[in-house]
Amino acid sequence: MIYFDNSATTQPYPDVLKTYQEVASKIVGNPSSLHQLGTQSMRILKASRRQIAELLGKAEDEIIFTSGGTEGDNWVLKGLAFEKSCYGRHIIVSHIEHPAVKETAKWLAEQGFEVDFAPVSQSGFVDVEALSRLIKDETILVSVMAVNNEIGSIQPIAEISQLLENKPTISFHVDAVQAIGKIAPEAYLTDRVDFATFSGHKFHAVRGVGFVYKKAGKKIAPLLHGGGQESRFRSGTENAAGIAAMAKALRLIFDKEEKARKELLTMKKALLAGLSNYNDVTIFSGLENFAPHILTFGIKDVRGEILVHAFEEHDIYISTTSACSSKAGKPAGTLIAMGISQKLSQTAVRVSLDETNDMGQIEQFLTIFQHIYNKTKKVR
Amino acid sequence: MIYFDNSATTQPYPDVLKTYQEVASKIVGNPSSLHQLGTQSMRILKASRRQIAELLGKAEDEIIFTSGGTEGDNWVLKGLAFEKSCYGRHIIVSHIEHPAVKETAKWLAEQGFEVDFAPVSQSGFVDVEALSRLIKDETILVSVMAVNNEIGSIQPIAEISQLLENKPTISFHVDAVQAIGKIAPEAYLTDRVDFATFSGHKFHAVRGVGFVYKKAGKKIAPLLHGGGQESRFRSGTENAAGIAAMAKALRLIFDKEEKARKELLTMKKALLAGLSNYNDVTIFSGLENFAPHILTFGIKDVRGEILVHAFEEHDIYISTTSACSSKAGKPAGTLIAMGISQKLSQTAVRVSLDETNDMGQIEQFLTIFQHIYNKTKKVR
Ligand SMILES: Cc1ncc(COP(=O)(O)O)c(C=O)c1O
Ligand SMILES: Cc1ncc(COP(=O)(O)O)c(C=O)c1O
Repeated sequence: MIYFDNSATTQPYPDVLKTYQEVASKIVGNPSSLHQLGTQSMRILKASRRQIAELLGKAEDEIIFTSGGTEGDNWVLKGLAFEKSCYGRHIIVSHIEHPAVKETAKWLAEQGFEVDFAPVSQSGFVDVEALSRLIKDETILVSVMAVNNEIGSIQPIAEISQLLENKPTISFHVDAVQAIGKIAPEAYLTDRVDFATFSGHKFHAVRGVGFVYKKAGKKIAPLLHGGGQESRFRSGTENAAGIAAMAKALRLIFDKEEKARKELLTMKKALLAGLSNYNDVTIFSGLENFAPHILTFGIKDVRGEILVHAFEEHDIYISTTSACSSKAGKPAGTLIAMGISQKLSQTAVRVSLDETNDMGQIEQFLTIFQHIYNKTKKVR
Repeated sequence: MIYFDNSATTQPYPDVLKTYQEVASKIVGNPSSLHQLGTQSMRILKASRRQIAELLGKAEDEIIFTSGGTEGDNWVLKGLAFEKSCYGRHIIVSHIEHPAVKETAKWLAEQGFEVDFAPVSQSGFVDVEALSRLIKDETILVSVMAVNNEIGSIQPIAEISQLLENKPTISFHVDAVQAIGKIAPEAYLTDRVDFATFSGHKFHAVRGVGFVYKKAGKKIAPLLHGGGQESRFRSGTENAAGIAAMAKALRLIFDKEEKARKELLTMKKALLAGLSNYNDVTIFSGLENFAPHILTFGIKDVRGEILVHAFEEHDIYISTTSACSSKAGKPAGTLIAMGISQKLSQTAVRVSLDETNDMGQIEQFLTIFQHIYNKTKKVR
């Protein structure tokens, strides 16, 4: 099996599952309980929080655990909107955000917030100049992702940070779900970033767990009210096993990050070189300012689904441009936002790599690709 | 070890952890992915959903997976409030709800909704007569829990169902987190109930997973917007392993439910009988209309924390009346709502049993209790 759908989800590392199993079977208490079983459980949370904070160069109390990326994005957007609605009701999100941000922003618009979508260039980068023109006195939030999940473009977080440098009343949120472990932390966690969203299952932790980086002192309403866990920012009995497993996964990822990034780049370059040989192939992802693990392309007049299923017959798993939109059959939001025609957008498939992949798989993929390319010639 | 804090959290059954491990290690795909790995993962969700629905005598599409009880409660309250705010902005919740409901209701009040708290009797039951007087044309939601988590009183869900019989514009939500597996489903899932909240870790599933029963056709806004998972009601990559583990746990629980309920009742009766022998003991939980697993009591003038720690020295784990409030040091909301003085409330501790406990443990507990009772005599 060749699994090239790592941006949809990754498989938990065996050591991560071992940690999960150990905590789930041995740590009995509810962290909120007064007795020592509760304390033991709380200690696991504390150690995991410290580890994640250290890996990201942040403070412990800046890490808030969640159930994943979607919750994180929903929390930050809605929590800030509700927290700051007295000061202003204007929100800016980019045109190529994940639905967890985009749909949330649309819902906020229905609730009476004013939402602007910052445009992107033809190659898939937020236009900082255009974004700057959208900012007004009532703006309370700018949300721009670090790495786009459909084509892998790295968004200009540093430039936007600079733009917002002297605008302290605007919160800056970065969806870093596709960035962590794949690009350097400085590229998604600048000093100006107030909130950033992360999801465990994208970096070999288990599903149903994630975290939000919340800069110390930043105010935000909770999305989940209740018992007051996570310093009152996120109520609900804490998933200690999932959280410990996530901390473990992050350490494993960071341990091999640099090596992995190099290897990913080598693989991506080989893929790019291979695919460039075909006349009818359009490549939507580049190298410069692109994450090393995502490569999106299409064969002229061949719908993405056809390609996904053709590869699947060879035990190779890729996806249309994002797992979420794939079943809905919607054309990829990012490509449309880039000004690419609906027709061409619909040909797009995404290869998303990971350090569990290797060059042998790339070669095999290219061999199978040639076969599929030739077979689809008759429909073109 | 004697673990009598099962209402705070339970330990996952070994078979439940096995299911978790199997799915987490073998089912690779994201359920939203088009290829067969996605389909495999989706199949797990479908099978789990069907199993849970069947056990509760409901339809498959009436089960929506969440990250736990707190999310479920927050979703139902906020989702209904936002969905129905055009029709009315009045909400009724009982005075003894879990903070996941109560704090959410308070937040909604800050957002301009009108919230009434239905009072309870001295013994801890919602006063249906008083509740009925709170209902008005603008009422959109009534939320009453099935089993109170602090003293175990079973709330009159059937009576409230009757009260709401001819009021179809009012949604009826039941927090059934402490009820499932402990009392008969008919007692918390009447035909009139529109929404009910459940949490896996309270019935030996893993933490970070739960579900909401949503009656077919009932409208509600999502709390988590995004990729449109869970029929658009709850976005976010699905925690297939956690969900499969939860379905497994529920089957195991329901298989032995009747036997367990009898055994729990026997244990509770023995406890009650034992504790009643002591002059300075106040018992807050009864037998009739009380769940068989929760018994709350206190020793005059001895703060609950002191008792918790005294038992802990004997490797026996109980709690102050709820895990959430225990660290906050807040007096128990339910006891205060019942009209019990702050001073007496602060003596309360909760023993919460489970079918993993046995009569031997009850006897041991009572022996230790005598010892502690005598030791605390000097402070009284
Ligand atoms: C950029 C981005 N943001 C958010 C999410 C949502 O994360 P999760 O699947 O953990 O809910 C995803 C995953 O699909 C993503 O790629
Ligand atoms: C009655 C009740 N509702 C809701 C919850 C919250 O559930 P969870 O811990 O899964 O967030 C609890 C658990 O403490 C509870 O006892």
